[in-house]
Amino acid sequence: MLPFSRVTIIGLGLIGSSLARAIRAEMPTVRVTGHDASPDVREIARRIDLADDITDTAGAAVTDADLVVLCVPPGAMGAVAADIAADLPAEAILSEVASCQASVIAAIREVLPNATLVPAHPVAGTENSGPEAGFASLFKGRWCILTPPEGTDTTAIARVEELWRRLGADVETMDPAHHDLVLAVTSHLPHLIAYTIVGTANDLEGVTQSEVIKYSAGGFRDFTRIAASDPTMWRDVFLANKDAVLEMLQRFSEDLSHLQRAIRWGDGDTLFDLFTRTRAVRRSIIEQGQDDAAPDFGRAHN
Amino acid sequence: MLPFSRVTIIGLGLIGSSLARAIRAEMPTVRVTGHDASPDVREIARRIDLADDITDTAGAAVTDADLVVLCVPPGAMGAVAADIAADLPAEAILSEVASCQASVIAAIREVLPNATLVPAHPVAGTENSGPEAGFASLFKGRWCILTPPEGTDTTAIARVEELWRRLGADVETMDPAHHDLVLAVTSHLPHLIAYTIVGTANDLEGVTQSEVIKYSAGGFRDFTRIAASDPTMWRDVFLANKDAVLEMLQRFSEDLSHLQRAIRWGDGDTLFDLFTRTRAVRRSIIEQGQDDAAPDFGRAHN
Repeated sequence: MLPFSRVTIIGLGLIGSSLARAIRAEMPTVRVTGHDASPDVREIARRIDLADDITDTAGAAVTDADLVVLCVPPGAMGAVAADIAADLPAEAILSEVASCQASVIAAIREVLPNATLVPAHPVAGTENSGPEAGFASLFKGRWCILTPPEGTDTTAIARVEELWRRLGADVETMDPAHHDLVLAVTSHLPHLIAYTIVGTANDLEGVTQSEVIKYSAGGFRDFTRIAASDPTMWRDVFLANKDAVLEMLQRFSEDLSHLQRAIRWGDGDTLFDLFTRTRAVRRSIIEQGQDDAAPDFGRAHN
Repeated sequence: MLPFSRVTIIGLGLIGSSLARAIRAEMPTVRVTGHDASPDVREIARRIDLADDITDTAGAAVTDADLVVLCVPPGAMGAVAADIAADLPAEAILSEVASCQASVIAAIREVLPNATLVPAHPVAGTENSGPEAGFASLFKGRWCILTPPEGTDTTAIARVEELWRRLGADVETMDPAHHDLVLAVTSHLPHLIAYTIVGTANDLEGVTQSEVIKYSAGGFRDFTRIAASDPTMWRDVFLANKDAVLEMLQRFSEDLSHLQRAIRWGDGDTLFDLFTRTRAVRRSIIEQGQDDAAPDFGRAHN
């Protein structure tokens, strides 16, 4: 049995548009309705036939839904929840895909205290944004983390879990605060570091921008990929998951100072020991299917 | 005309073995001789037919060469130069591929003050190591930076340049100190940051190693690739290019503190402005052919 028959997606960027495509690919009888606050995005979504219906208002998108998934940046979640409050059917399940959960859940709860809320964060993405960047297989083999608040109806949780399994994701459940800590280290800190180093490289006097770009294959270009991610979404993530991000940043800075000291004092053993340990982490990620074993991410060399 | 007819490669890891393969692929009449300090590596090199001859000593490898390329870690360059000093023909050109040049050139000069030295650093690589990790097309479309010491014979420089062009590389010439500064930002700092963050993530109490690996697709896994690079080589690079690396690290730390403060005080504009600028850097790298335009580095999603 299908977990849902009428799914509404609010926010048609990379994740929302991938979700629409994935549902239509895997469950073609589900009716998919979409809405985006941007008229330009709505027009593109209609042109590329992203959903059965693209509505001009958020309210009109949800009136008939049995699942509503909010796919907007974390900072916009509360306002969108308010927008749909008058039209959301009482029996509909509300979900959202934010990369930081505690503050987003609180913002939604404030305007929709009685909605059945089952957040589901798919740990997947690319550096591209917008309705044309999405694709149906984005979630296959990736993890989707559900963070239902305590006391959430278990049938509702099971239905959302079933939806994501059908899209090819593995599903895990966590409490929101732990989710935010895990994502702070596996996603938010890496993005912050990447944004920082790309900014640093861009601002030097002794090395020109043109040199940075020409010789980026030495390692720098790897960082530019995630530093090309959506600025609005990432601004919101860092502000919304402030405490966990600052905690991870503190750890990172301590570790970096430790290495800095090892370099300054010529302590090669400290460097060598760390560099040997980090190699093992890469091996585990490949063994568990979370990255490709092909060298250089499988980039073409020709 | 071929720039060289008898090329010797000392050190048959990723770069040395790729160089052997590339020369045989592009200039099949050149005689390639190889040597590696490790008997295991020599055995593999013979088994996979990496060169026309694999010698048991470094000295035996160079006696007949018109070009000798040292492809060993920076910290081993001086010792290898000493090893070949007695056998290096007076008219042979000596080259090396180190990622940091000033200290390596000094170490070689100390034992071979009169050799014609034309260092050539190909800005290319993968996270894999060893004679079986190399491939002939590694240098195609990448930059190779020559850093000949002042007063080097211009014909020698031109011949080394011609060799790398024939292997598919674009060639640039820089003075060694500037090379080391450029590489500190485009390669050494990224590697140091990647090693650090992978170590940080590995050492947390609140988040398990298993969670870090499962949810690594949120960004972390990108860092694990370069943090899987050869520990010996990278230890040597950081120690050999200490001053430039520490300078870049200082810049990076200042910029990171600036962002940390923006997050703490909820200054979204500072974050948004940086995240918009960094996007443009990625675009330039793709436009200039230094990375693939395919989302997510072209990783398979299925």
